[in-house]
Amino acid sequence: MDARAYVEAHASGFFADLKEWLAIPSISADPERRDDVRKSAGWLAARLRATGFPVTEIWETGDPPGSGQPAVFAEWPAADPGAPAVLVYGHHDVQPVDPLDEWRSPPFAPAEEGGRLLGRGASDDKGQVLFHALGVSASLAASGRAAPPVTLKMLIEGEEESGSPHFAGLLHRERARLGCDVIVVSDTTMWSEQVPSMCTGMRGLLDAQIDVTGPDRDLHSGSFGGAVPNPLHALAALLAGLHDAAGRVTLPRFYDAVLPLSAAERDLLARLPFSEKAWLAEAGDSRAAAGEQGFTTLERIWARPTAEINGMWGGHTGAGAKTIIPREAHAKLSFRLVAGQEPADVAAALEEYVARHTPPGIEAGVTFGGPGVRASHSPIGSPAVRAGRRAMERAFGREILFTREGGSGPEADLAEILGAPLVFLAVGLDSDRIHAPNEKVEMGLLLKGAEAAAYLWEELASAGLISGAGPRP
Amino acid sequence: MDARAYVEAHASGFFADLKEWLAIPSISADPERRDDVRKSAGWLAARLRATGFPVTEIWETGDPPGSGQPAVFAEWPAADPGAPAVLVYGHHDVQPVDPLDEWRSPPFAPAEEGGRLLGRGASDDKGQVLFHALGVSASLAASGRAAPPVTLKMLIEGEEESGSPHFAGLLHRERARLGCDVIVVSDTTMWSEQVPSMCTGMRGLLDAQIDVTGPDRDLHSGSFGGAVPNPLHALAALLAGLHDAAGRVTLPRFYDAVLPLSAAERDLLARLPFSEKAWLAEAGDSRAAAGEQGFTTLERIWARPTAEINGMWGGHTGAGAKTIIPREAHAKLSFRLVAGQEPADVAAALEEYVARHTPPGIEAGVTFGGPGVRASHSPIGSPAVRAGRRAMERAFGREILFTREGGSGPEADLAEILGAPLVFLAVGLDSDRIHAPNEKVEMGLLLKGAEAAAYLWEELASAGLISGAGPRP
Repeated sequence: MDARAYVEAHASGFFADLKEWLAIPSISADPERRDDVRKSAGWLAARLRATGFPVTEIWETGDPPGSGQPAVFAEWPAADPGAPAVLVYGHHDVQPVDPLDEWRSPPFAPAEEGGRLLGRGASDDKGQVLFHALGVSASLAASGRAAPPVTLKMLIEGEEESGSPHFAGLLHRERARLGCDVIVVSDTTMWSEQVPSMCTGMRGLLDAQIDVTGPDRDLHSGSFGGAVPNPLHALAALLAGLHDAAGRVTLPRFYDAVLPLSAAERDLLARLPFSEKAWLAEAGDSRAAAGEQGFTTLERIWARPTAEINGMWGGHTGAGAKTIIPREAHAKLSFRLVAGQEPADVAAALEEYVARHTPPGIEAGVTFGGPGVRASHSPIGSPAVRAGRRAMERAFGREILFTREGGSGPEADLAEILGAPLVFLAVGLDSDRIHAPNEKVEMGLLLKGAEAAAYLWEELASAGLISGAGPRP
Repeated sequence: MDARAYVEAHASGFFADLKEWLAIPSISADPERRDDVRKSAGWLAARLRATGFPVTEIWETGDPPGSGQPAVFAEWPAADPGAPAVLVYGHHDVQPVDPLDEWRSPPFAPAEEGGRLLGRGASDDKGQVLFHALGVSASLAASGRAAPPVTLKMLIEGEEESGSPHFAGLLHRERARLGCDVIVVSDTTMWSEQVPSMCTGMRGLLDAQIDVTGPDRDLHSGSFGGAVPNPLHALAALLAGLHDAAGRVTLPRFYDAVLPLSAAERDLLARLPFSEKAWLAEAGDSRAAAGEQGFTTLERIWARPTAEINGMWGGHTGAGAKTIIPREAHAKLSFRLVAGQEPADVAAALEEYVARHTPPGIEAGVTFGGPGVRASHSPIGSPAVRAGRRAMERAFGREILFTREGGSGPEADLAEILGAPLVFLAVGLDSDRIHAPNEKVEMGLLLKGAEAAAYLWEELASAGLISGAGPRP
């Protein structure tokens, strides 16, 4: 029986299982649901054990262990000890469900509706985690073997929807057991049902705050106005100067290390049936696209670095007027980074920019929300991505295009701490309403995902990946 | 007996009276002190009646009358019906007294301390109101006449320290009875005890708020960042663009109607023994002077118009990072105006500036805190100011220099609604700690003020002012 036939034959059992899992309200952000998150982890471990994984474990997280919420680890060694090791990443926790009254059916009572399965977590991410269980069974059925052609590991965390606060710690702690040659991430989206695609990167992130101080107290603008520097003016000038007339970020060396888009990738992006008008409508009807000159909107949000002011405040912000020169002013900024950029270099460049453009009589300091996150990037020509694309093309029977994501996730930690390349294999859609009421998943796409996963292990086994399931030094 | 001898002979009685008045805690901002404000008005009316004013009245304020706090009106017609009419402005309410534990003696138990009188209101403004009573008595004693050489009116309000909310209404209501040829304001300061001076103007004021909106909700900066306009960027650019590299305000036509400083006035200002270092120390040690190129610090704060940002806010201002493009951003601004500038013209120029510099995809609106206040200005060459200067020079026996004030007060309303020029005759000092604990007044200066007031009525009677005690049309 080939993989496709196996998947189709086992579809109804797969969805029955998924519905059972979706009924567990594993909302990691809700302290009242800690038991449910644990129950969800236990459910998944049992299900993977039933699938045949010889190793299934609940991994405690946090310091002390157990203060965080549990992850699930499973491992199924390849028969060939020289086969590559693959780690599948996903998460079993889900988003909160408010506003509850906008759901057409209760979020934890999954319901079928015209080929779609409604329920919190159907797409993000339980459906996409579980298709791997069906996929590996299909792969074994098709090959007639007792073990997968690669050493298959799964790490399914329980805090992704809460910002993965203990995930990097877990990766460091379990680095040896998580060692792998490639990481498969199943937590993103495709362009559309008609245009199947793979994500090839997510932007990195650096959070910063600029604090500007002037006089040692608020001054009366009648007595001092026009004759001493005003921290709000200084901050406005610092922020306004962050971009030049071409929409480029003015920080020193900001673009020096940016990996340019290849002509091949720009070509592939341009083939996506993108409607700028529809995209702008999502941001409010009257918006105009704007940004770095020389790039399309998709290139701007996926493949170009940015500087955005996320908040600013200072002086009198209440009702009425208060004629002061305030003693201080503040702004929060975030930089989206792309492949090649080091967060630490951008941080240093911001400090240099602020120091250089702070007027006399004003002091300005920069603090950072953390060390920042590097962009994650899967070059489209790499053996792992090419293997993933072949698996997807076999499942979908058509050409697979490439997308990226503009945001940032724990994927960068995975790639960095484990020292392995990423392959994004996922079948979610932007229309799945993840994080919103009435989350759904296309049931047919989940089956395609299972089929692609079944092919993926063969494709990766023969892709010429470096073997050896140990972490990089 | 000449005026000086009279003042000196009656000094102890004057200070005994002043202490009695200062003991009444007429804090207009404190609702618990409404009765005391009324008691203070009654005290003053009785004192002026005893001085000889044939008309003394308590004027209710507010709508309905009595909802505000009472002013005192007094009138003493000149013997000559063709003599000019003079209106003295001051206030009998006082500032709050917190922090109480910093006072060396109780604020409403006035105490003498080495030639100074300590107590709330000693300088601001009871002492400076009451010297007019002594002054008019001295003037009559010196001339041997029964009535002053000008028709003398006094309007002493009871809400100045609360922002004079009902003062313009009162002026409109009583415009006929307040008609005058010159207004004498005794509520400002001199340069110093050694450098007696007269104020010749206060800046005007226009309050504005800029509201910028972009997307119809906060957007995720990962999904949209770098490809749609950000309201915070737009606001920062609007604010940063308000000044050019020379520190000049960039609003269209902003300086077109500005009355330039005359060479004579610049000369007189330059003769003031101003220490920029000491002045900067008031604003915090590390400050640098900054502002419009080509002007001194005193010229900048007294005689040049400004644009100051008083507050701004938008987006995420709490703890931590929130990677959004916010839907809106706001700033509060104030413009200090000088003679010649119309608040309405500046308001129109700001609207034009904002409209012209708002990028596509962003909407920006401007609102104003009110119609604004014109600058008040007493040209140093005018007959009224020259008469005031002669009176001050006779009292102090030395040259009188000129200052201005950078802030704004109800004086502009007086001049505008009553249609008469202002003369600032006052003997307060910047070191009087008005609005702070341990307010004091130099007792010797109050006597000089009384003497100058005594001379002032003669000087104004012979200054060639237009006669006729009716309001301008």
